[in-house]
This record gives sequence, structure tokens and C-alpha cells, in this order.
Amino acid sequence: MARYPGLTLRILGDGEPAMGPGKAALIERIAETGSISAAARAMGMSYRRAWQLVEALNTSFTEPVVITATGGRRGGGTIVTDFGRQLAARFHAMENKASTAIARDLGQFSQHLRKGAGRRNRAGG
Amino acid sequence: MARYPGLTLRILGDGEPAMGPGKAALIERIAETGSISAAARAMGMSYRRAWQLVEALNTSFTEPVVITATGGRRGGGTIVTDFGRQLAARFHAMENKASTAIARDLGQFSQHLRKGAGRRNRAGG
Repeated sequence: MARYPGLTLRILGDGEPAMGPGKAALIERIAETGSISAAARAMGMSYRRAWQLVEALNTSFTEPVVITATGGRRGGGTIVTDFGRQLAARFHAMENKASTAIARDLGQFSQHLRKGAGRRNRAGG
Repeated sequence: MARYPGLTLRILGDGEPAMGPGKAALIERIAETGSISAAARAMGMSYRRAWQLVEALNTSFTEPVVITATGGRRGGGTIVTDFGRQLAARFHAMENKASTAIARDLGQFSQHLRKGAGRRNRAGG
């Protein structure tokens, strides 16, 4: 089962989120585009914010996740390491595994949901 | 395994969260205190907000979750139905089951976290 849309996973290191849906997506966009600025643009995120997340990733883990070439054009020569790709892949595998574990319960629980209730009711929580 | 603190589950009905950690906790506090206002106080939530969540719960599901006696003192005579208690219990069981499913992977993933990184790095995502 793919990730259940109501399930959010963050991997905590020292209580801080070291990996979550946003960082995993950023890693994948950088791997696709070879550029932090292009990845940030694709995600509607500022370059500054993307750069902060990349720095946080490189600080949180024992091996580099994203390597940026210095001296080149801004965002040019950026690569995601194999280690970084594996982190993102394993993160998504965990999201999927957690979702699969509760798929049957979700189906049973959802039988108690009134149809159309969401349109009459906007309160979250 | 108890819920992994980095895992958040929300049960979606028509795309809206019908049940989540906040609503499940509110149901439990109301069951304990017999009062929406006491439950709200215990959770640091406004009475108005708690009442909106109770209304949302009663609207989202096929059976009443919380029954409030009208005409009494504000928040008096409020009970959580057996159905409501079961919803909260089943919600927590799902959180725990999803966490258990990824416990081993979390342990492996966490081996790649650098110790003390959280204190040097505040960026979320």
C-alpha cells in the first residue's frame, strides 16, 4: 500500500526531525534536477529555505546527503549521494509499511464515517 | 510498541481529518472529567474550540461520540458514548500498530543519525 494520506512520519534525532516528507521530497527533486535552486522552485520553496534543509540533512546524518560544488554557478554541480538516495527511499518504504500495517483497520474504521460529513464540517484536530 | 513520537495519524473522511491525536485526546479527557469545559482546560484549549471539535466528531461519524445534556450547567452532564470510547481506543491501536510495523526499520535508520546533531541544527521539514 502507498502511504495513507493521513499518515505523517518524521524521523527524530535528539527530538528534532532529521527526516520528514519535505526533506525526502527535496532530496528527490535535487537528485532529479541536479540543483538546489531548481528543486526549491519545483517545490515552491525559497532557495534559502532549501539550502537550510540541505545543511540540516548534512548535519543530521553520519554521511553527506547532498554535495554542493563550491565556486560554480548557484545551485550548479549539486549531487545527491547514494547514501542520500537510500535515506529517501528507506523513508518512503517506512511510510508505506506503516500504512500497510493499518490498511485493514482503516477500512473498518472508515465504515463508521458518515458520507459527506467533510463538506459540512471544517474543524480539524 | 507505543506510538513512535514522529508518527502522526489522521483518519480522513472526504479529505477532512475526522479523527486525529487532538480529537482522540479530547474524547479521553471528556470521558475522564464528564465535562467539555474541564477537558478543554486540561488541554489548554478554549471551550469554543473544544465544542467545535465535539460537534465535528458528532457530524463525522454515523453514531454520536459525545452527548451533551442541554439545560444543565455549561459542560455538565456530558458523556462519551461507548462508540466514542471505542473510536479513540481503535485510533490509538492503529497508531501503535503503525509504529510497531516500522520499529525495526527506525532502529536501522537511526544508526545513521549523528549524535548531538539536533542541538546544532534547528531546521525542520
